[in-house]
Amino acid sequence: MDKLTLFKQIQEKKSFLCIGLDTDLHKIPKHLLEYEDPIFEFNKQIIDATKDLAVAYKPNTAFYEALGAKGWQSLARTLDYIPNDIFTIADAKRGDIGNTSRLYAQAFFDRMNFDSITVAPYMGVDSVSPFLSFEGKWVILLALTSNEGSQDFQMIQSGDGKPLFQHVLEKSQEWGSANNLMYVVGATRGEFIAEVRKIVPDHFFLVPGVGAQGGSLEEVAKYGMNAHCGLLVNSSRGIIYASDGEDFAQVARDEARKLQAEMEELLQKFCK
Amino acid sequence: MDKLTLFKQIQEKKSFLCIGLDTDLHKIPKHLLEYEDPIFEFNKQIIDATKDLAVAYKPNTAFYEALGAKGWQSLARTLDYIPNDIFTIADAKRGDIGNTSRLYAQAFFDRMNFDSITVAPYMGVDSVSPFLSFEGKWVILLALTSNEGSQDFQMIQSGDGKPLFQHVLEKSQEWGSANNLMYVVGATRGEFIAEVRKIVPDHFFLVPGVGAQGGSLEEVAKYGMNAHCGLLVNSSRGIIYASDGEDFAQVARDEARKLQAEMEELLQKFCK
Repeated sequence: MDKLTLFKQIQEKKSFLCIGLDTDLHKIPKHLLEYEDPIFEFNKQIIDATKDLAVAYKPNTAFYEALGAKGWQSLARTLDYIPNDIFTIADAKRGDIGNTSRLYAQAFFDRMNFDSITVAPYMGVDSVSPFLSFEGKWVILLALTSNEGSQDFQMIQSGDGKPLFQHVLEKSQEWGSANNLMYVVGATRGEFIAEVRKIVPDHFFLVPGVGAQGGSLEEVAKYGMNAHCGLLVNSSRGIIYASDGEDFAQVARDEARKLQAEMEELLQKFCK
Repeated sequence: MDKLTLFKQIQEKKSFLCIGLDTDLHKIPKHLLEYEDPIFEFNKQIIDATKDLAVAYKPNTAFYEALGAKGWQSLARTLDYIPNDIFTIADAKRGDIGNTSRLYAQAFFDRMNFDSITVAPYMGVDSVSPFLSFEGKWVILLALTSNEGSQDFQMIQSGDGKPLFQHVLEKSQEWGSANNLMYVVGATRGEFIAEVRKIVPDHFFLVPGVGAQGGSLEEVAKYGMNAHCGLLVNSSRGIIYASDGEDFAQVARDEARKLQAEMEELLQKFCK
């Protein structure tokens, strides 16, 4: 999927919502445990209930790995079930030397047909490039994350006054384009998003940290939106675990609908 | 496993060899493809042939993930097969916000009983600490890697003249001790290992990059060894793919034996 196709979907759905499929056996409604593959059944019903409101789904691979081979199967089945025109993100935060990154890319791009994968930048160019060499696939590189530990290294200033996350943004633009490279940019502080947008005017940002983690959607849009929207804002728990009863999918839809309505307004206001 | 137990095994085997189980269906001997689980069968024969020479085994998780749920099963079977007194490393380079890192830790420490996992530092304290809270388990944190891309960010100097990898070494020592935290330190340049050893006198280093990647074992020992050895030196392809015939396990043993013999001399010379 290229940038304009993604933008077209954003315009059609009036939404830049990404739904995080952080699916946890201990949190899904009890009645689903009777199914042969409860994780897939949960995802399937969430997808059915929200696919006209979300432009992306983002399974966090840790939740599936924690279940071993069976979890891996649930993940593959989920990927097969997501409609092809919806952008899919393997939130895997991989990154290793070249031949190893190539294998991770095969696992997520070829075997499971994800559109994109989140990648950690620490090991540099040859850990990221193998993912970028897959036609039509995307890297979403960690730049400025929304967790407490982002202060430890991402904010360290180099001799020329630039924080590490800025080096990551600048250097990585030599490796890929706005058509195969996005960035993870945390939503906890609006002013940082504005700073990142100045450095990277054209690329999409994947923004976690709205909702449970406390960021404001309006601030994200105000400081981060560009002429092609340029934002995918993720919500996981706030949508998928809004109810743990038999009505979970309907309640998830209601929550997604609220975010989509807010996004529709923000697109009108800031996407120009 | 604690540091002294690991050192005791190093003394008994006169070896600090870690064997990388980067097991690839396209590279293993053809006759193994008849088995129901060729990946496990290959690992089993390699382990049988080398377990008196190696103090650690390090499966690279990418090779298993590339095979989907089946690969994940081969990995779990391999872990069950490795004798309990040998240190096991999940070379997974994980790292995510707290609740996600906790799930990765469960996947590798509880479900598969690995002794340790490699972790990427970019997201800081709350991405690393969840792994450190598992009693008797280890984090092996990426510090200075041996690949070309290590130059991109790891060597960036902050205002006070310290490269990023030094910040990672110093900061992370607040999070764990020499009994649950090791570092990945590349072997491509001896003088860097000496520098890292000055900053971190007591911790173990996992050293990739000897053999196929070109580092010198003698230099690594000279600059990196401490009174408890403090080194696990990995070799993958140079051992496990030394032959692709029916004699692969015996030839792997011969290669491991050569490295062990060299290590025995280096322990006598530098471990004091």
